[in-house]
Amino acid sequence: MKMSSGVEWALHSCVTLSQSHEPVPAARLAELHGTPPAYTAKHLQALSRAGIVRSTMGQVGGYTLTRPASEISALEVVQAIDGDEPAYRCAEIRQRGPLGIPAERCSRPCAIARAMAGAQDAWSHALAQTSIADLAADIDADSDGTAMLDVRNWLTATRN
Amino acid sequence: MKMSSGVEWALHSCVTLSQSHEPVPAARLAELHGTPPAYTAKHLQALSRAGIVRSTMGQVGGYTLTRPASEISALEVVQAIDGDEPAYRCAEIRQRGPLGIPAERCSRPCAIARAMAGAQDAWSHALAQTSIADLAADIDADSDGTAMLDVRNWLTATRN
Ligand code: FES
Ligand code: FES
Repeated sequence: MKMSSGVEWALHSCVTLSQSHEPVPAARLAELHGTPPAYTAKHLQALSRAGIVRSTMGQVGGYTLTRPASEISALEVVQAIDGDEPAYRCAEIRQRGPLGIPAERCSRPCAIARAMAGAQDAWSHALAQTSIADLAADIDADSDGTAMLDVRNWLTATRN
Repeated sequence: MKMSSGVEWALHSCVTLSQSHEPVPAARLAELHGTPPAYTAKHLQALSRAGIVRSTMGQVGGYTLTRPASEISALEVVQAIDGDEPAYRCAEIRQRGPLGIPAERCSRPCAIARAMAGAQDAWSHALAQTSIADLAADIDADSDGTAMLDVRNWLTATRN
């Protein structure tokens, strides 16, 4: 079970966007974490499709969050990049073989599938409770309060 | 994020093995859920390496659980098949780019990596609390108490 590596980039980039009221050009987001343009564009598109960021055209075109960072959960970002299919998919193997249960008696998911779904729910719940604003605050706390100021200063200094 | 499809087979097969004091031949386990011999052998090997099943040779050679089913968690079975690497892997992108944090100041995992690890812990915890015996009991309850009796009867009837 492996999550797309783009999730790390997307979460960090949403934290970056939370520090700017102005649109941030894709090139700045690429530069900040050293990602190639195509990689950056692909993941910004996924975030845009999921309604997490919006792009604005014009002289200072770029990306902004569509909502306050406190209203965007880590779960939304993860699912925008990695998809929202549960990791475990039941292929109804209980219906197969000499003791196969007839499909008409399988309206309720199998007990094993329910246990796996319960674990997925616990995972989703943990990430739904963490917002981009929480992550920004935690990163800031780890740096004794300089990290987000550095981001804001850098975004201002590199604005053209 | 996608889990190996062998997890479903392995969980069902451990439930089956929990119904037998006698070794169950691999061919019976293959037959029960309609899996090809190579697939069956590969997953039994993984369960064996993880110390969940043991194989016995001899006239009635086959597989048994190494411990009471109440002492084998769903998590152990999932990790035996799907590996125990966390789904999210931090590539330390915070160390890259113009605002990169020097490695020596990164001894604590990034706040984003901590949030993702917290979600993984919630998932693991849910599966660690569910035993193979719990799953057998739940499957039995779903069938009004006939499913495990059917398995035991079938295993006895097909013993050679
Ligand atoms: S049939 Fe899919 S988990 Fe049991
Ligand atoms: S550097 Fe990997 S999650 Fe932040």
